[in-house]
Amino acid sequence: MNSTNKIPKATAKRLPIYYRYLRYLHEDGKDRVSSTELSEAVKVDSATIRRDFSYFGALGKRGYGYDVEDLMHFFSKTLKQDRLTNVALIGVGNLGHALLNYNFHQNNNMRISAAFDINKEIVGTIQSGVPVYPMEDMVQQLKMQQIDVVMLTVPTSAAQEAANNLVKAEVKGILNFTPIRISVPDHVRVQNVDLANELQTLIYFIDHYKTDDKDSLLPLD
Amino acid sequence: MNSTNKIPKATAKRLPIYYRYLRYLHEDGKDRVSSTELSEAVKVDSATIRRDFSYFGALGKRGYGYDVEDLMHFFSKTLKQDRLTNVALIGVGNLGHALLNYNFHQNNNMRISAAFDINKEIVGTIQSGVPVYPMEDMVQQLKMQQIDVVMLTVPTSAAQEAANNLVKAEVKGILNFTPIRISVPDHVRVQNVDLANELQTLIYFIDHYKTDDKDSLLPLD
Repeated sequence: MNSTNKIPKATAKRLPIYYRYLRYLHEDGKDRVSSTELSEAVKVDSATIRRDFSYFGALGKRGYGYDVEDLMHFFSKTLKQDRLTNVALIGVGNLGHALLNYNFHQNNNMRISAAFDINKEIVGTIQSGVPVYPMEDMVQQLKMQQIDVVMLTVPTSAAQEAANNLVKAEVKGILNFTPIRISVPDHVRVQNVDLANELQTLIYFIDHYKTDDKDSLLPLD
Repeated sequence: MNSTNKIPKATAKRLPIYYRYLRYLHEDGKDRVSSTELSEAVKVDSATIRRDFSYFGALGKRGYGYDVEDLMHFFSKTLKQDRLTNVALIGVGNLGHALLNYNFHQNNNMRISAAFDINKEIVGTIQSGVPVYPMEDMVQQLKMQQIDVVMLTVPTSAAQEAANNLVKAEVKGILNFTPIRISVPDHVRVQNVDLANELQTLIYFIDHYKTDDKDSLLPLD
């Protein structure tokens, strides 16, 4: 594999989807898969799949398709699925509780291993198998437990202060579920999951969407 | 505004973010905003903002910036914020409960007005202000209530069957929170919110991310 390849963000986002389906095929005893089959299963057109895979070198053979096990192992390494990633949850409200019960571990080698909140009723308890620490111990605990990826589900008003402390705790990545855009230094990566925005974008697409080209350009009338 | 403009998906996804900040400025009594200020607040570089806005015609004036009220009203119409959108929730488990408590209405003219589940303990009750109907009434209720946008939060094993019934109910858009890619006809728009995938992509980006160009190409080493 060419180590100087650059891959687009859109391709990177599809890797976990490919990986998950390849695992499914492998468990099902399948040895190989065509780009057409893969395309139908993951709902990505086969030209896009071929282009995505091309960033990683020539992984398929014409007339044969892709070797399921090879490809699965390759994506497993690329996605660092060969080691467990521990993640912390910052804020155990309604959404935080839902995330604690969400099965991140099912198809992915990651799990929530610590949670933080200010609510005295749950601090010091185990929620869905995860210990809840007081918010004031966050910086120290994250450093001690060497957790560098967190999910931020605090109320909007507490988001920036929590983000500041996450920077102090030297985290590298924040999955931000709050509706505000938090400010952090450039070396900290923030990925926003804004549920109201997702819903509003969907509604916008329905109103303005007239072609069957779902992923590129949308007519606006 | 040019009615034949086509706008990229990435631009469409940023519209709600612009809209929300413009509302905030308007409530704060601000008359105008520069693309630099906007850029810092919404964390989108100003070249991208100018390009995004250009799809809708020349909304700003050199040396003046953008008129907050004009721009806000324009986005409000574009995003159909001038009318309330009712949305249904399909599946009231942990994530469904979190979504019922999520304040979609705060900055957006949309709300969850009906929920569906198979759990007899909650069917017939009001959860967080929203009536919960039995799953077997879903097709009929969605048609009767003229709801054409839903959030799908059923267990994975029930996702495709629910999707089939949503097609029968003639919904136009599905915000799919289940980890599977559901199959629906082309006229139904599906937007996937895959939380494990978001987390995995973030971890991937942290491991492979070496430049400060967060949104385009990522070095892979």
